[in-house]
Amino acid sequence: MLRTIRLLIAYDGGNYCGWQRQRQGEATIQEELEQRLSHLCEEPITLHGAGRTDAGVHALGMVAHFHTRAAIPVVAFFKGLNALLPPDIRILAAEEASATFHSRFSALGKTYRYDFFTGAVQCPSTRLHRAHFPGPFDPKRLRTALTQLVGRHDFSSFERSGSRDKTAIDGRGAVRTLYEIRCSPRLGCEDFWSLHVTGDGFLRQMVRILAGTLIEIGHGKRPEEAIAAILAARDRTQAGLTAPACGLFLERLYYPFPLFNQNPVLPCSPPAIP
Amino acid sequence: MLRTIRLLIAYDGGNYCGWQRQRQGEATIQEELEQRLSHLCEEPITLHGAGRTDAGVHALGMVAHFHTRAAIPVVAFFKGLNALLPPDIRILAAEEASATFHSRFSALGKTYRYDFFTGAVQCPSTRLHRAHFPGPFDPKRLRTALTQLVGRHDFSSFERSGSRDKTAIDGRGAVRTLYEIRCSPRLGCEDFWSLHVTGDGFLRQMVRILAGTLIEIGHGKRPEEAIAAILAARDRTQAGLTAPACGLFLERLYYPFPLFNQNPVLPCSPPAIP
Repeated sequence: MLRTIRLLIAYDGGNYCGWQRQRQGEATIQEELEQRLSHLCEEPITLHGAGRTDAGVHALGMVAHFHTRAAIPVVAFFKGLNALLPPDIRILAAEEASATFHSRFSALGKTYRYDFFTGAVQCPSTRLHRAHFPGPFDPKRLRTALTQLVGRHDFSSFERSGSRDKTAIDGRGAVRTLYEIRCSPRLGCEDFWSLHVTGDGFLRQMVRILAGTLIEIGHGKRPEEAIAAILAARDRTQAGLTAPACGLFLERLYYPFPLFNQNPVLPCSPPAIP
Repeated sequence: MLRTIRLLIAYDGGNYCGWQRQRQGEATIQEELEQRLSHLCEEPITLHGAGRTDAGVHALGMVAHFHTRAAIPVVAFFKGLNALLPPDIRILAAEEASATFHSRFSALGKTYRYDFFTGAVQCPSTRLHRAHFPGPFDPKRLRTALTQLVGRHDFSSFERSGSRDKTAIDGRGAVRTLYEIRCSPRLGCEDFWSLHVTGDGFLRQMVRILAGTLIEIGHGKRPEEAIAAILAARDRTQAGLTAPACGLFLERLYYPFPLFNQNPVLPCSPPAIP
């Protein structure tokens, strides 16, 4: 019987060339997982992730699925796989899924978190997991910008130039919907901020370019209302710098049904499309 | 003119054999700092730390001082030194001190923090900065233990066996005073706990043995009132295991006068010695 198994995965991206298997055999999360899964299942396994993360980007709740004929109890894909994997990749949960489940196509959206520090001197023990943007940062300056970003927009200005696979036409082009975006201080940690972005999908480096641009606004280097014109320009050169990968975490995926005992509800219902 | 300069230092201990310079030339925090200071001052510099941290232990607020005849503005020991140091060692502040200041002998006490995680699967991105003790943990079980530890006690049971330099008689033996000890959940992080310990001084591995023992109590592996008998035994074998170095942070030092614009007040006044 062909089974569908889904996994909830956390990883530290610091030592990897991203999620996606590379042809040249560079270390990737997908490849590490497929190797161990193929060993466990005694057959070649292809793992389908809910999305791709770039080199150096971390995940707290990546979802992925695979098909297998192996008659292994599902707990082996939790305990057994963790015993085989390096400590910077962890399986948080594993469960049987219906044959129609697809980690990417079934997903309604996802939340990314971008962590950054605006103090003068970066803390040595957290330096590999938050970006450093020293200088006085005022989150109140982001109010207008965050409001301008929520909703359905063409995010061409926030896409790595030349990176889109134009042959993979899915009808959306660079149009995506952001359901929620907020910037909050990390409790108990001075000058430490998290940007949470939830949307139905993200272009290549979109969260990092959004973070880079918003941090420039919070630093007073761009006007508070700058976002509207940047969006309208549909031109990557109008947005800010691409913030470093080390601060970015894929926090969670959303589906129209409960997964791994997680609440399936998106932070905001998708706004009606005009 | 001979100047006294004091430094506030943070470091990630993961790649070092501890604070103290080693004879064999292994990488230590003190050696890294002395090398750069000697280069800056163009004379050999000896750095005196407020304490020693073991291999793998981190610091958020180590204090150290040195003497120099170099006529360098004090800001160079902040900005200039940071430019020369590796990113896992950072100078948080530098200032001129009186000739009588001594980072160790002038100190009234210090606070250590021990971070640990009791969930089933350790988060990959924080695994190098908190210890993993999986299993149901109830901090309420620590109430009696924490009360029994506060005050002036002979902590022989919580000292690495055979480690004390018996020739360095300072009259205290293994007697130390704990001013405050508390265990609190890390806000917003499930199963993530911090143990804060403030005292006038600490024996070798004392905080890690305290942490190991208290976590056993919180896990229900030892009776809640176990500490009194362990203290009375003055025998290392009666206490719990030595918790791993990676979870330990030297958080701050206390002095009878303000340093680096920090509040000099200890969390509790030292209790009267009976």
